[in-house]
Amino acid sequence: MNDAPLDLSLDAAALTAWLVDFRSESGNEKPLADAIEEALRTLPHLTVDRHGNNVVARTNLGRSERVILAGHIDTVPIADNVPSRLDENGVLWGCGTTDMKSGVAVQLRIAATVTESNRDLTFVFYDNEEVAAHLNGLRHVAEAHPDWLEGDFAVLLEGTYAEVEGGCQGTLRVHLRTTGERAHSARSWMGSNAIHKTAPILAALAAYEPRRPVIDGLEFREGLNAVRIEGGVANNVIPDAAQVTVNFRYAPDRSEAEAIAHVREVFADCDIAEFVIDDHSGAAMPGLSHPAAATFMAAVGGIAKPKFGWTDVARFSALGVPAVNYGPGDPLFAHKRDEHVEVDKIHHTEERLRAWLTA
Amino acid sequence: MNDAPLDLSLDAAALTAWLVDFRSESGNEKPLADAIEEALRTLPHLTVDRHGNNVVARTNLGRSERVILAGHIDTVPIADNVPSRLDENGVLWGCGTTDMKSGVAVQLRIAATVTESNRDLTFVFYDNEEVAAHLNGLRHVAEAHPDWLEGDFAVLLEGTYAEVEGGCQGTLRVHLRTTGERAHSARSWMGSNAIHKTAPILAALAAYEPRRPVIDGLEFREGLNAVRIEGGVANNVIPDAAQVTVNFRYAPDRSEAEAIAHVREVFADCDIAEFVIDDHSGAAMPGLSHPAAATFMAAVGGIAKPKFGWTDVARFSALGVPAVNYGPGDPLFAHKRDEHVEVDKIHHTEERLRAWLTA
Repeated sequence: MNDAPLDLSLDAAALTAWLVDFRSESGNEKPLADAIEEALRTLPHLTVDRHGNNVVARTNLGRSERVILAGHIDTVPIADNVPSRLDENGVLWGCGTTDMKSGVAVQLRIAATVTESNRDLTFVFYDNEEVAAHLNGLRHVAEAHPDWLEGDFAVLLEGTYAEVEGGCQGTLRVHLRTTGERAHSARSWMGSNAIHKTAPILAALAAYEPRRPVIDGLEFREGLNAVRIEGGVANNVIPDAAQVTVNFRYAPDRSEAEAIAHVREVFADCDIAEFVIDDHSGAAMPGLSHPAAATFMAAVGGIAKPKFGWTDVARFSALGVPAVNYGPGDPLFAHKRDEHVEVDKIHHTEERLRAWLTA
Repeated sequence: MNDAPLDLSLDAAALTAWLVDFRSESGNEKPLADAIEEALRTLPHLTVDRHGNNVVARTNLGRSERVILAGHIDTVPIADNVPSRLDENGVLWGCGTTDMKSGVAVQLRIAATVTESNRDLTFVFYDNEEVAAHLNGLRHVAEAHPDWLEGDFAVLLEGTYAEVEGGCQGTLRVHLRTTGERAHSARSWMGSNAIHKTAPILAALAAYEPRRPVIDGLEFREGLNAVRIEGGVANNVIPDAAQVTVNFRYAPDRSEAEAIAHVREVFADCDIAEFVIDDHSGAAMPGLSHPAAATFMAAVGGIAKPKFGWTDVARFSALGVPAVNYGPGDPLFAHKRDEHVEVDKIHHTEERLRAWLTA
């Protein structure tokens, strides 16, 4: 564990290293939340609130717009990759470098140094992002103190390799169950084969042509896939039950209800005994048409991309706050033993956000 | 365990009860094989041989034909259904009553009492029928002493409820494996879904129209069925492997090679990465066109039916001996806790066999 105190005067890369060395695997965020709360409370321009191990700090400058910078402070389990190590090429290695302590470092640096922002600012540091949805700290804050999360636009500093990724796709998981009647396979006409009844389900999946809708200038790509299939009783028995688990990844122009209705429609002609929704997280609009997003895009530069995976921007979207993903880490190395971040990307991200908020 | 000695002067129903009370679950047949061998050795008209826990007894009357009466002496595990119980309706209850100690009792009664048969007789009592094929005693005798099983016609006294069931269908089990490429399900176009590739396999199964060929006057019924399906890596991963296990039950006008070729042909247009034969037991011709069978049918009466399930008649068929199933037990109650046999069926079967062999 890191013995040095959290020093907000450090540069963002050094701050990232300090955060990586201060272990905070999911479920063990309290010491880091304490350190962040303590450091932020020394800043006179911020009001600091806490709920569990979630810390929210806000300016109250009376600006016409409020933007939120959010990030989770937990990491996946450490894999022999702490303490951090800065190599000769300016790459910082270690657990959380990309997911997402470099983003948290940028949040902290902006919080400490942008005291007279052109917009009111809200900084959210939350726990338990890497585990189950019901433990997610951002969810807990949204439920207990929705007013803390009020704003016009949010930036989630999850790693995007310093490119803007707008919104996120929704994800719906459904079990499609077929039923039949058992019989000895030597007298198969006495039964009814539930596995054979999955044939039209799989044919519909194989023939499915996913949409690629353009929303706010971003081309999303949907997908409808079987992720599991199971059926069978014994090697000499006609099976009376089978199940196909389908995952629908959908663009943010569909509501949750529309996504369910679409999946039902795709399989409308299949002989499905049970349609069970196993998991569902709605999509988030990119929010790039919002005025705050336009100035954000102008400040950070580059061309926004769609976010295909699901992230916590969807929670902001559900609260009515358009949100994008923008952070220094490379998402391809998240959760990996060789997780790393380029110091240049940390500085670039910090500089672009500062330019946007001080222009 | 039964303490009374094996008494071949008992009536066949009493002999069945004695055999049921003399436990002989698969793997523990030695005491019963000893008792049977000892009893048969007291009969001067029989030559007795033994291989492991398999006992073979033969007449040597110089007849022009030799017929074989065969049965296994093991049972499935006892399920609180020993000792046997004879109820007031003439039904004998207990483990092995139908599968197949009633058949073995009839064999023993014929062996003891038909001393001047019109055909030479071979009695085969074998072990380990209820477990794995490689343990099967009839197989061991066929491999070690094929001469002991020479004959013109065989009757396997497996329960058929005293009706003749001719031959048996073959059974072939094949794993059909598909492959793809993993990807995160949020970016499914980066991968290739192995479960979706099973769609044409299942479509072929669902559309398959099984034959019902008539062979030796018996209508067989084939069947091609998925008995298992499995695939999936995780709920958010496009799966790179899936497997459909198919069971083909086929009529005895197909050889083993033809059965395999047929299954390959059914799925010829499917994108199958591996075709793995998991299990295969060939079919047996009914043998009803053999002269010995004609007199057998005339003696036992009724109309022969096809045997859909696989039985050891196929081993006789493979040795060039036409074979039928004919025994007193009701196959629907085999392996069940409420296994039972009607005493009338035991006596009827014995009487019909005696009539055939002494006419």
